[in-house]
Amino acid sequence: MGGQRRTHSEMKGIRRLAQHLDISIGTVSRALNGRPDVNEETRRRVLAAAKELGYVANQSGRSLRQGTTNIIGFMMQTGAEITGQGDTFFMSVFDGVQAVFARHKLDLVALLCSSQEDPADYLRRVVARGFADGMILSATQRHDPRVELLSERNIPFVTLGRTLTDAGQPWLDLDFEGMAQASIDRLVARGHRRIAITRPHDDVNLGYVFVERCREALASHGLTLDEDLIFRSTPNEAGGYQIGRDLLALDDRPTAIVLINETIAIGFYRALSEAGVRPGRDIAVIGRYSPHAQFLSPSLTCFQLSLRDLGVALAETLLATMPAFRHHYPSTTANTLWPMELVEGASDALYIHQS
Amino acid sequence: MGGQRRTHSEMKGIRRLAQHLDISIGTVSRALNGRPDVNEETRRRVLAAAKELGYVANQSGRSLRQGTTNIIGFMMQTGAEITGQGDTFFMSVFDGVQAVFARHKLDLVALLCSSQEDPADYLRRVVARGFADGMILSATQRHDPRVELLSERNIPFVTLGRTLTDAGQPWLDLDFEGMAQASIDRLVARGHRRIAITRPHDDVNLGYVFVERCREALASHGLTLDEDLIFRSTPNEAGGYQIGRDLLALDDRPTAIVLINETIAIGFYRALSEAGVRPGRDIAVIGRYSPHAQFLSPSLTCFQLSLRDLGVALAETLLATMPAFRHHYPSTTANTLWPMELVEGASDALYIHQS
Repeated sequence: MGGQRRTHSEMKGIRRLAQHLDISIGTVSRALNGRPDVNEETRRRVLAAAKELGYVANQSGRSLRQGTTNIIGFMMQTGAEITGQGDTFFMSVFDGVQAVFARHKLDLVALLCSSQEDPADYLRRVVARGFADGMILSATQRHDPRVELLSERNIPFVTLGRTLTDAGQPWLDLDFEGMAQASIDRLVARGHRRIAITRPHDDVNLGYVFVERCREALASHGLTLDEDLIFRSTPNEAGGYQIGRDLLALDDRPTAIVLINETIAIGFYRALSEAGVRPGRDIAVIGRYSPHAQFLSPSLTCFQLSLRDLGVALAETLLATMPAFRHHYPSTTANTLWPMELVEGASDALYIHQS
Repeated sequence: MGGQRRTHSEMKGIRRLAQHLDISIGTVSRALNGRPDVNEETRRRVLAAAKELGYVANQSGRSLRQGTTNIIGFMMQTGAEITGQGDTFFMSVFDGVQAVFARHKLDLVALLCSSQEDPADYLRRVVARGFADGMILSATQRHDPRVELLSERNIPFVTLGRTLTDAGQPWLDLDFEGMAQASIDRLVARGHRRIAITRPHDDVNLGYVFVERCREALASHGLTLDEDLIFRSTPNEAGGYQIGRDLLALDDRPTAIVLINETIAIGFYRALSEAGVRPGRDIAVIGRYSPHAQFLSPSLTCFQLSLRDLGVALAETLLATMPAFRHHYPSTTANTLWPMELVEGASDALYIHQS
């Protein structure tokens, strides 16, 4: 990862550049590698001369030999149920990731893993191709074989999300515990006793974390989480609509619900609206912010975070593990629970007066 | 691109697989390549045995020698102004692209080019790394050096969008001419004479196509496109808001507007709403569909298309140019203008009665 070994023809090119510019071969090489210990002016001169003299590093060859490509892969799940209506999460995270990578001339590519496919199989193929220097994994599962895979191959990586599979990897995760605790405390303080929650349809780790903390928070108030009030759904509008329909069909409806995914709020509101049930008046609703949330009426009480800042932290956490970059990020923490902020809306204005 | 040349150690592995399974070396090789002329059952047996015997094709080596990686890159622009609020276009297109690529065991990666960077420089770097067998380019500029670059390197590619730079490349593009013509005809038929239009802030080709056809359509009705009524904006909500403010500040306001980007409608509505100006009553508005459009009130008259189907066509158009796949797509057209469908809303209900 540190020094670059180069082919004979590449070395000839570098020697020619060094002579042309009258600077050392090492400096030329470091400048071409985008190493930060070369000053900007020198880097610019080297790159200009490289262009002028037609020097092109054989990146493909380099990747074969030692895996340095200056590409970082960000693996995300795609598919009709996940990104079929677009994405309001990853693109904003990418924005922050790219801002950091730009400092080091690293490129970000999104590795799109279809939900039709096993993520570990997909990653195995990507790794065999050896085109990325490092990896960011999202949608971590409860048990996630991708962690072992990358760890065995010594590929630097960071996960967005936690998993029980522990290879000592660095991770960032949203503070779903904090969200669970704050939501339950808030609803209980408003008199709610029958509180529903949602969880993702699949085995993604955050579902376990969220449900568990909701259960504990309810217990701390002497309440029990009713298994019938845990609604599973796909992370999209249709999933939220189905939750709404299922909830309304219950004989003993809950008086409050906490929605774990962003876009399910939209479908959930729609199902309620069709039945004449109004958030904040007839049921208390707490959810997560998305750009869509601004259109919801009454306004959604929701948890919000800066996705761009999250992306910045994710990138810096990864680079802090990579020998070529870690000296730039000496104080970066390897494991971070990212807080979310509660934005008060009108959707949870319902108080239950116990008789 | 057609047959695979393999290293000595790979050939040894393939021979071992063939003996183990008692089938021909050629069949094993074709199955490993994901070639369609191997039946599913055989492919499954070969892949299972390959896994069992620990066979891993050296993809990185293969890429160096002949450029076959089974990866297709989809280059898209990112950045705070473009994808900062998420993306409701490309992710849905990817869904269709991946559906086609899955048939051939091709993987799609999204090449994220920051708006801070020159797209041609970015692509040059990607090409030098040689990790993609083919390329899909979006956001084609009026003059687009990326077309020459890929053409010179003999890298198969298709563009989503047209450009004046012509290397005989295949392309798909939305029918912006059709949208311009239908919008202008419709508004003129409702009595509008002062019609505003919008165009992207940058040099993307579709802006030229759209403005030109609007001008022609107006001329065919004996009307002139007023240069002061062409509003430039970034393709996001903030851009739409600015258009609204600028339009309202005009002494001689237009009575109608056609919005070229999807999400600008949201900000535009907001600017109007703040000024007490109502679409459909005080000004006629025609835009493009996005998942956000459902939240707009009054409902937006807009042009819609299936982004997934567009993705399918895009992938098939690319594969039809690649020797290894073209026999699957014998009748695919190289250049396609993709129609958009007008969905009637209430936002253009305003009729102007000429006195």
